Order: sequence, then C-alpha cells, then structure tokens
Amino acid sequence: MSRVWIYDTTLRDGTQGEGISLTVDDKLKIATHLDKLGVDYIEAGWPGSNPKDLEFFQRCHTLQLTHAKITAFGSTRRVGINVEDDPNLQSLIAANTDVITIYGKTWSFQVEEALRTSLESNLELIYDSVRYLKSFNREVIFDAEHFFDGYKQNQEYAISCLLEAQRAGADSIVLCDTNGGSLPHEIAAAVTDVCGKLQVPVGIHTHNDGELAVANSLVAVSAGATHIQGTINGFGERCGNANLCSILPNLMLKMGKQCLRAKEDLALLTSTAHYVSEIANVPPSRSQPFVGASAFAHKAGMHVNAIAKNPETYESISPDQVGNHRRILISELSAGDNLVYKANELGFQVDRQNPKTRKMLQEIKDLEYKGYQFESAEASLELLIYETFAPEADRFELLSFRVTSERSPMQESLAEAQVTLRINSHVFRSTATGLGPVNALDHAMRKALATEYPSVNSTHLVDYKVRVLDGSDGTAAKVRVLIETTNGVHSWTTIGVSENIIEASCEALVDSFEYFLIKFDAKHARGELAESVSV
Amino acid sequence: MSRVWIYDTTLRDGTQGEGISLTVDDKLKIATHLDKLGVDYIEAGWPGSNPKDLEFFQRCHTLQLTHAKITAFGSTRRVGINVEDDPNLQSLIAANTDVITIYGKTWSFQVEEALRTSLESNLELIYDSVRYLKSFNREVIFDAEHFFDGYKQNQEYAISCLLEAQRAGADSIVLCDTNGGSLPHEIAAAVTDVCGKLQVPVGIHTHNDGELAVANSLVAVSAGATHIQGTINGFGERCGNANLCSILPNLMLKMGKQCLRAKEDLALLTSTAHYVSEIANVPPSRSQPFVGASAFAHKAGMHVNAIAKNPETYESISPDQVGNHRRILISELSAGDNLVYKANELGFQVDRQNPKTRKMLQEIKDLEYKGYQFESAEASLELLIYETFAPEADRFELLSFRVTSERSPMQESLAEAQVTLRINSHVFRSTATGLGPVNALDHAMRKALATEYPSVNSTHLVDYKVRVLDGSDGTAAKVRVLIETTNGVHSWTTIGVSENIIEASCEALVDSFEYFLIKFDAKHARGELAESVSV
Repeated sequence: MSRVWIYDTTLRDGTQGEGISLTVDDKLKIATHLDKLGVDYIEAGWPGSNPKDLEFFQRCHTLQLTHAKITAFGSTRRVGINVEDDPNLQSLIAANTDVITIYGKTWSFQVEEALRTSLESNLELIYDSVRYLKSFNREVIFDAEHFFDGYKQNQEYAISCLLEAQRAGADSIVLCDTNGGSLPHEIAAAVTDVCGKLQVPVGIHTHNDGELAVANSLVAVSAGATHIQGTINGFGERCGNANLCSILPNLMLKMGKQCLRAKEDLALLTSTAHYVSEIANVPPSRSQPFVGASAFAHKAGMHVNAIAKNPETYESISPDQVGNHRRILISELSAGDNLVYKANELGFQVDRQNPKTRKMLQEIKDLEYKGYQFESAEASLELLIYETFAPEADRFELLSFRVTSERSPMQESLAEAQVTLRINSHVFRSTATGLGPVNALDHAMRKALATEYPSVNSTHLVDYKVRVLDGSDGTAAKVRVLIETTNGVHSWTTIGVSENIIEASCEALVDSFEYFLIKFDAKHARGELAESVSV
Repeated sequence: MSRVWIYDTTLRDGTQGEGISLTVDDKLKIATHLDKLGVDYIEAGWPGSNPKDLEFFQRCHTLQLTHAKITAFGSTRRVGINVEDDPNLQSLIAANTDVITIYGKTWSFQVEEALRTSLESNLELIYDSVRYLKSFNREVIFDAEHFFDGYKQNQEYAISCLLEAQRAGADSIVLCDTNGGSLPHEIAAAVTDVCGKLQVPVGIHTHNDGELAVANSLVAVSAGATHIQGTINGFGERCGNANLCSILPNLMLKMGKQCLRAKEDLALLTSTAHYVSEIANVPPSRSQPFVGASAFAHKAGMHVNAIAKNPETYESISPDQVGNHRRILISELSAGDNLVYKANELGFQVDRQNPKTRKMLQEIKDLEYKGYQFESAEASLELLIYETFAPEADRFELLSFRVTSERSPMQESLAEAQVTLRINSHVFRSTATGLGPVNALDHAMRKALATEYPSVNSTHLVDYKVRVLDGSDGTAAKVRVLIETTNGVHSWTTIGVSENIIEASCEALVDSFEYFLIKFDAKHARGELAESVSV
C-alpha cells in the first residue's frame, strides 16, 4: 500500500481565512490534537512575519509531540541582498525546527509583476535560499507558488524553477495552485509531467476557489504526488485550502493509500474537526462531508425506510470509520417513520398508527410552521416525546418572570431577573443579577431549582445562538434561540421561538433544565422512565 | 461551442437538506429567479408525495417563465400494479408539466434490498413507466438512481436498465451518484462507456459526500454528458447536491461550454445564490466559491499588496463575471496596507505613516482582542475611519437606556425601552414598547432621532445575529451582535460586543443609525465629508 504524507497548514495558511484568528495557546492546543490524529507535518506559522508566530516557535519545543514534525514557513530571500543578511531567512533558522518550508515564484508573470525582478534573478533567489537553509541540516520543502499558472504560461521556466530547487538540495517540491483556478485534468497532466522530470518527492497544495481543491489533490496523488498540503475543515484565505477532513477518508477508505499512523486513527477525524472549529470559534458546517452533523443525517422518508433495512443503500462509508454517527431527522418531509425511530431509541415501543404518535406529529408540524426546528434541537424534541408518552416526567413550571437591563451615565450596566417557579406543587420565587439578561435569568432559575434539585449546579451553558426568522422585519421578527448546555459529560441543545428574544431564551433555558433533570438527574434516570411506561 | 443543459433541483432535492423548508410561495419566487438566471429545467417537487408540492403544480402555471421548463418528479410504478392504477404516475400526469422526470433503480443490490423484487421485474417497471408517460406526449427524463454503485457491482445489469429506459422512449438518461461516494476517475470511465452505448443525451446527478460533486459533474461533461443536475448553493440531503453556483462558472469561464442564455447572465449568479439563501433562511456560506462574501476577499498583507498591482496575481477570474466583488479585509495579519486601501476608498488620502492611521490600527487591534471582528461589520469599521479622520461627522450620542421585559400569568409578554440621546447639543428622551427588548430599543431610538433626522424612518433592520464568543462560559460569556440594516437601496452591517446582549445590541443599533446618517442622510453625503477634510 503506497504512503501519502500529510502536511497540515491549518495554523499558517488556515489562519488567512476570513474570521479566523488564533492565539499562541490556541495554536499549541491544535498542534497537540493534530499530532494525535497523526499528520506528518504541522506548518505552524511564519516566524519572520509577526510576534505571535515568533512566540509559538519559542514555546512549541515544550510540546510532547509523538509523530508530527513542526515546520516553519517563509519565503525565498529578498531581491538584492545576501542570504546571511535576509531577516526572513534568519528568523526561519532561529525558529529551530527540523523542517523549513519556503515558497518561491515559478510563474513568469508573477516574477515580473509582483516581485519586479528578472526571470534569471528569481532562479538565483530559489537556489541561494534552499542551499543556505540546507547548510543548517534542516529538511527543506520548496513550495512552488502559482506553479500551475506558471506551467500554463511558460512551461519551461516553471519547470526550471523546480529543477533549481532540486539542484540546491530541496527534500521535496510542492506544486501550488495558489489561485485555486485549475481544473482536475490540468492538475493531472502537469503533475504527471513534473513527476517524470524530478527525482525528489512531489507534493500538491490546492485552494478551493473552483470548489475543486479536494478533487485536485486526489488526482495529483493518482498522477504521482506523495505529499498533500491542506487544512482541517478547509480553513484558508478566500474559499479556503484543500480540506484534509475530506482528503483523508477518500485517500484511506477509497483509494487504498496509507496515511496517518493507522487506518483506525481516522476515527479521530470528526472530533479533531470539531475541536479546531471550537478553538477557532467558527461554527462547524453541518453539511461538511464526512465530519459534518448532517453528513450521515437522513431526512427523506423513503431514505429512512431504506436505511433501516440496510445503511449501505444511502451511505458510501460507515459513519464510525470517521468518528461520526448516523442521525434520523424529524421534519414534515419525513413524517412518521423518523419519529417512531427516535421514540424507539428512547425506549418507547410505539408505531405510526398509535394515536399519541399521530397527535405529536401534528404538534411538531404546527411548531415547525411557527419557526421551531427540531433538527438542530434534539433535546427539545425528546422533551416533546417525553411529554407525549411520559407526561409524569415533567419536573417544574415557570409561572412568571421579569428582566431589566439598564445603563446610565452614573452607573455600570446592570441586568436583573425575577422568576417564579412551581416545583413539585410548591411555589418558589428568586431574584438574581447577571452580566446580561439571559445570564440573570439562568442564575435566578438555577437558584430556585437548586433548592429541590441541587444537581442543576453541575450544568452550564456552552453556546447560545440567535437567528432572526423573517429577514424582512428586523428586530420585530421572530427570533429562534438555540442553547447548548453541558454537564461535563453530555451536552444537549434546546430551542425557543418568540418575537421577544428574552421570551425565546427563557423557553430554551426551561427546556434545558427540564431535559437535564429527566435524563441525567440521579433520581430520574432515562432507563427507569421508559420502563415504567406502557404505551 | 458545445451546449450543456442545466437542470436545477433546488426546489426538490435541495429541500431534502437539513434545515431547509420552503413554502409554496417561496418555491414560486425561487422558480422566477431561476428562470431569470436562465437554467433550462426547474425540477419543482414530487406531486405524489405531499399536498405542498401538489399546490405548487396547480399554481406554477400562472408564472410567466420565459425560458425554463417546470419539471415534475416521481418514481417508476410500484411492484405488482399497472401503470394506470399507480397513484404516483397519475399525479405526475395530473401535474400537467411539459417535462416529467422519473427515477428507477439500476443497482442490483438496491433492487433486491430496498425494492425487494427481481432484476427482471425492475426492468419491466422502468419500461412500463417511461412508455406510459411518453404516451401523454411529455418530455421524459429517466434518473438512474445509484447508477455508479450499480455499474461497479453488476455493470451489465446497470447498463441494461438504461437501455430499457431508452427503448421505452426516454428523452434523456441521467446517471446518478446517489450516495456521493464515487471518485472522479470512476465517473469519467463509466460516463464514457455509457455515452458509447446510448443514442439519447446523457446527464449527470452527483452528491457531495466526498466533497467531489462539482469535480464529478465536470469530468462527466468532459466524458460526454450534456445535462447537469444540481442545486443553488449545493443545498441537498446530507452533504448536499452538486453546486450549480460552482459548476456554472467552471463550465462557462474555464471549459468554454455554453450554458444559460448568454455568458453575461452569469453575473446574476451571486444575487441568485444569496436570494435562495435568504428565502430558505440559511445563512450564506462566506467561503463559498465564486459567490461567497469571502470568495474575493484578501487578507494577507502580501496578497493585498500584489492585488493592488494586478488582481490576476490572486484571482483566477474577475469577481464581476459572477456578480461578486473584491474585498480587502482588515485584521492583525494584514496590518496597515489594507486599512489604507479602505480609507482611500472612502476618500481620505492617507498613508501608512500617518500618525492617525497608526493610532487607529492600534485601536482596531485592541478591539479585535476584545472580540470585535470588523471583517463582518464593515459599516462599524468605516465609522472608526470617520471618527479618526472626520470626527465632526458624529451625529448623536446615547446617554442612557433602560429596558424591561416581563411575562406573568395575568398578562401578555411586554417589552419596554427608555432612551436618552444627545442630538446636536439638545437632549431628547423617549419611551417605546416593542415585541422584544431590541425592537423596543430600536423604536425608542428611532423616535428620538426622527425629531432631527426624519430620514431614519426609511431604514429597517433586516438581520440580527448573536454569537457567544467564549464557548466555555455560556450566557456569562461575551456576546457579539451583528445587525444588518437597509434603506431599501443599500444595506450595511454593524457590530456590538458586551457581556450583556442588550448592551451589545444597543451598540450595534447606535452604529447602524450613525452610519446611515453619515453615509445616506441627504444633508451629509459621503462625498462632501471626505472633500471637506484634509489629513
């Protein structure tokens, strides 16, 4: 089985993506995860470009990496100075990594337009820089920027740049589709040609401007490339870099290539993808291939029916191979089958003909019409199922609330909430302040609930999302609030919909506490409940 | 130039996507837009499956489409009944469209596992159904479900299904990669083979489970397919269908194919993509190729520098070819160059060395550290530039506010806001209620501002987004509010960050009004301001 080397540049090219910014601590955490996944190289930054990257290279030596090699990135020397005087090359050496990657130009148009130097002088930049870095005994990777554009415009010159890097001792040479404009057949032809002309391993670095980065990486491997550069989740400038989360399963499960340390490590893919999203504070894309929450989610009733018979009918790989899982969605399109599947999962043995099932289905349709969306709030959906088949599970009721938020020139901003709850036929009232109105509400409810259910203090909110449902009315439109809560072991998402953001938040908070108490409060475990119920 | 026919299934397969639900009105609106863009077919629903699709086919005949053909979708007849008794085929005919698409099975595994019938009987289902629909003089398209999986398992049988559809009179035959599991070289080989064996036009229908749907569609065209099925924005079940927004520019600008009515119509692509997102209430993906807000956004300082010299250095097509535009992002990575570019755009002739520029850059870095992100709130960034270079542009100041939201068993939910504003050295106080606290604040501020600036009443909020910045603290964490406002002609986005959602919303609202007054209020047009200032 042939080996393909995985070169991750999430920490360098990935951070060029719009909205992506990582602290040094973030980068160190992500590097540890990438090493655990088993990538071969971690390109971590450009030590010559900013103090943050410089700090990373000082601190990264304390990481206990077991496999991956940290790589510093920079450019060939500047025009008109010696390598010894080039601050960028000096900072690459000072970064003290085993591997250094430098990029150089290979497109004659770019040499003349952006670098504003002669073609001959650019060949010298490449040779001098690679040769100099090699003299420090580092592994040196040469990134041929804009290679495919260069190959189209002046094939002979583009190849001569690569030969120059090879002559200077580069350990591998990576062909970059910097603009992301190349088509798969163009990549295949150029990589085949280059592989026939070079003795060193050839790599591929693509961008997704044509939505072709993954395909372009795969065809390059078929054409002889043995090194792939990409990022987790495809983060990167403009439309992003080649997405390693899609490249790895295609290479390993479909093309029979050997990557990472073992095939089983691919099961870390989904958690790594979500971890990186979380750290970068970018919401994970639900529809992302292989690792997205929808990647194995089935909605069409007909598909759900077939999946129940045999998952291969609508899944080309098994979700556990990439650490993901199958989901059955409840919506107007899918009707009864999916809901029955879900209720059965919770331990209620019901079928489509059950009158309670039909009533609940109607209720879900009505709520969806009002703007609820249970696909993204499975905890609230489960509460509906409990309410239908085990109404005695209900733990408390919110009777009233009042929230105030104010700021005046004389005082700090203040938020305060009062709530009245009925818990086991007793009425509790509590007041609390908070950093904002939802925080104050959370505190006030928690205070009242803790008198009867102290376990609520083991939970805390981890995410809070708001979406306006009807774009044309602004703040007067309905808002949909999604709240994600965790008790450190499990996490769950609940929903609230209202024209008033405080109302909607309150509803999602109530569902969140209710769900926790039904599912995880020691006295009322889920198993017991389902068993005690006959439907 | 060879013609490729574009078959849009946003309204049918697209609505299988998680979180996507369209009303009949939504569907009618989208169909009108698709026709304007110039797609050849609009697959609009499955008349036999639900009342919503049935209503669409009753109402669609009132649309004044100029080019596209509305298509009804369904399946081959059921096992064991005659075509005349099959309710699904009857509803396809009753839908009264010029074109009918039916799917049938071609994968022997599926025939036996999902359909649970014999291979021979499946051939009869295909023949009977196509023949019957053709007898009503409709254009009939046969979708060969799971074709590529079938071709791998039992090539001869898969092809025999296609030949049966052709023999029955199908006008085109579409090969479907239903699971999205095929690789480009597999698609190319199978399509080449099929095109050699069929006389009717061959189409391609792919899914994105391997992040290869666009590439698979393009290689199918290179192999002889002349009909492509896909959806706007790649909406669809699991990871989505082939994305027409990426396929069209690749086909038309790079592969020289003729699609739509004219090449110029491609300039409608970005607005069509955003319109469909808006109607489907799915936030547009910023990094989406060609049509995303980041598709032509440049962040790395080095790139910005090169782009200023020549855009071709980092753009493989010109953004206006697809109706998009170039953006220069301001962030810690890009430093001064990008900010100067932006200030120049606003009419302030400054350079990087200007002390005010340096001070503003520091301020932006500090704000970004606190959680502000100007990449997605360009109006707030422009306000910072105005504050720096034209502080006299400032229109008003919010002195204090107080917001209350309450619900009790005895009364309806109520939200009320009081605000105090200083406008042109006068102090105004106003109180207003609203459907929620932000709506009440908007009303109260608008009321006070309108006394001096009546034009504020021409604006309204179109979107309101909230994001929690630090996932680990829930509602006690900072929230970032983005508000999008429009005056019907322009729209702009402003930002607020605070631990208190009301504070953050208030800040974004103030910026929104301020921006409108500076840029669009008749008395204070942008041109005048910039000219009156020397920096």
